[in-house]
Amino acid sequence: MRKIAIQGTLGSYHDIAAHKYFEGEEIQLICCATFEDVFAAVKKDSDTIAMLAIENTIAGSLLQNNELLRQSGARIIGEYKLRISHSFACLPDEDWADINEVNSHPIALMQCRDFLNHHPQIKVVETEDTALSAEMIQTQNLKGRAAICSKAAAERYGLKVLQEGIETNKHNFTRFLVVADPWKADELQQQQAEINKASMVFTLPHTEGSLSQVLSILSFYNINLTKIQSLPIIGREWEYQFYVDVAFGDYLRYKQAVAAITPLTKELKTLGEYAEGKSSI
Amino acid sequence: MRKIAIQGTLGSYHDIAAHKYFEGEEIQLICCATFEDVFAAVKKDSDTIAMLAIENTIAGSLLQNNELLRQSGARIIGEYKLRISHSFACLPDEDWADINEVNSHPIALMQCRDFLNHHPQIKVVETEDTALSAEMIQTQNLKGRAAICSKAAAERYGLKVLQEGIETNKHNFTRFLVVADPWKADELQQQQAEINKASMVFTLPHTEGSLSQVLSILSFYNINLTKIQSLPIIGREWEYQFYVDVAFGDYLRYKQAVAAITPLTKELKTLGEYAEGKSSI
Repeated sequence: MRKIAIQGTLGSYHDIAAHKYFEGEEIQLICCATFEDVFAAVKKDSDTIAMLAIENTIAGSLLQNNELLRQSGARIIGEYKLRISHSFACLPDEDWADINEVNSHPIALMQCRDFLNHHPQIKVVETEDTALSAEMIQTQNLKGRAAICSKAAAERYGLKVLQEGIETNKHNFTRFLVVADPWKADELQQQQAEINKASMVFTLPHTEGSLSQVLSILSFYNINLTKIQSLPIIGREWEYQFYVDVAFGDYLRYKQAVAAITPLTKELKTLGEYAEGKSSI
Repeated sequence: MRKIAIQGTLGSYHDIAAHKYFEGEEIQLICCATFEDVFAAVKKDSDTIAMLAIENTIAGSLLQNNELLRQSGARIIGEYKLRISHSFACLPDEDWADINEVNSHPIALMQCRDFLNHHPQIKVVETEDTALSAEMIQTQNLKGRAAICSKAAAERYGLKVLQEGIETNKHNFTRFLVVADPWKADELQQQQAEINKASMVFTLPHTEGSLSQVLSILSFYNINLTKIQSLPIIGREWEYQFYVDVAFGDYLRYKQAVAAITPLTKELKTLGEYAEGKSSI
């Protein structure tokens, strides 16, 4: 039995991603109110694995989770890319004409902007969570209310789906990271031959060409960048922090490249080495 | 009289940033419900200038605004960095013991996480906007309710500030862009000698070293990167889009550098050339 900590409730996209990643395994979900609580759950019990959203094609990076990950010392052991498709759902005995308010997470609402623009008579109210909105409609028997949530959440909470696939962009996906306590990570990590991705964070002086040097070296070692994001460092105006994901074919070459860039960077930290994620896209 | 379109209401951080940037000028604010509406206002009346948040030190980039900017054809003509300090405010005849719910924008709530953790008895409810939360407490006379908003918003809506500076990190700032219709931008743009920053977006094939080449060239031309962010392009899995901000001392050198990287990139677009922003930090 896998213990998986997620932010959110049953039927949330975190729940779906956890079940997809650990397909065929029995899962015990630990539903947490915040991402801080998710990391706390992993720290408390090293058998607990966290599944957390890290970036979405529409909404961008969840910088807060990058930072929590860096501070926690926990390690990435895998990733999963989930195609996000939203449904519009209400109480089973209601229909379109009854709905005057829709509830969902701000990001989900943003992803359904075109749909919402076509229904200007429906008041849009933000809530904490997609699945929670569905659950509230069921438990509080909220008439006239719809939720934007996954089809799975609508079904779980006995709601009627009035429309599926209401997201504006059909290429909408979220990337989730599978994160474990460092001790547990050694046990769970993929075989070296399977590892072809790594996530790292480092600091560079804010001078001309410092990033260019680091990327040139990675390029010489045939390491491919799959993501880069700079962040100003709070309280240190002349240095920048970079979150970088790299992909590679040869694990040894990758290790050599990391050794080669280390003297040029400050505070280089590997957040995890893992196999490129399965995907539902 | 300057016409400035912002997302949000009077007393919002957008309002404060607009008044700081155009200090000493008379401003007519056009308060819009969404960022889409802000760009629509600029398109409709080329005398209208937009002020929009583009990144925050804690919450990260507002990717949606990057994308709206790219699609709109509008041009960046300036920037402003505003130190974000939140207040905790309620109806004037209430006090700490009365408060059982706090309302604010999700990002503001996130920025006050430590404060909220110290007051676990107060229920946290997300709303659309910081200033709007203050306004609602006033207009609906909401007892037991507090807003997290700017001190200016609390004062504007006649609320009592129970605590100032409740943000967890005192280096919390938001960078705002000043954006104009392309025709208007020519008129408003700074003198060439003052321009020392530019924002651009381009596409690169997802191959080893493609970004490294571009950054090497920028480095040869003494162009300094102040921000870089990669975005997967929806529906084109093998290409990445990069949003890059650069700083430079010599405008001609910068122009030459752009010419030099153009053949290596696809769809390179300059979003604006401007003077480094004034700042309240």
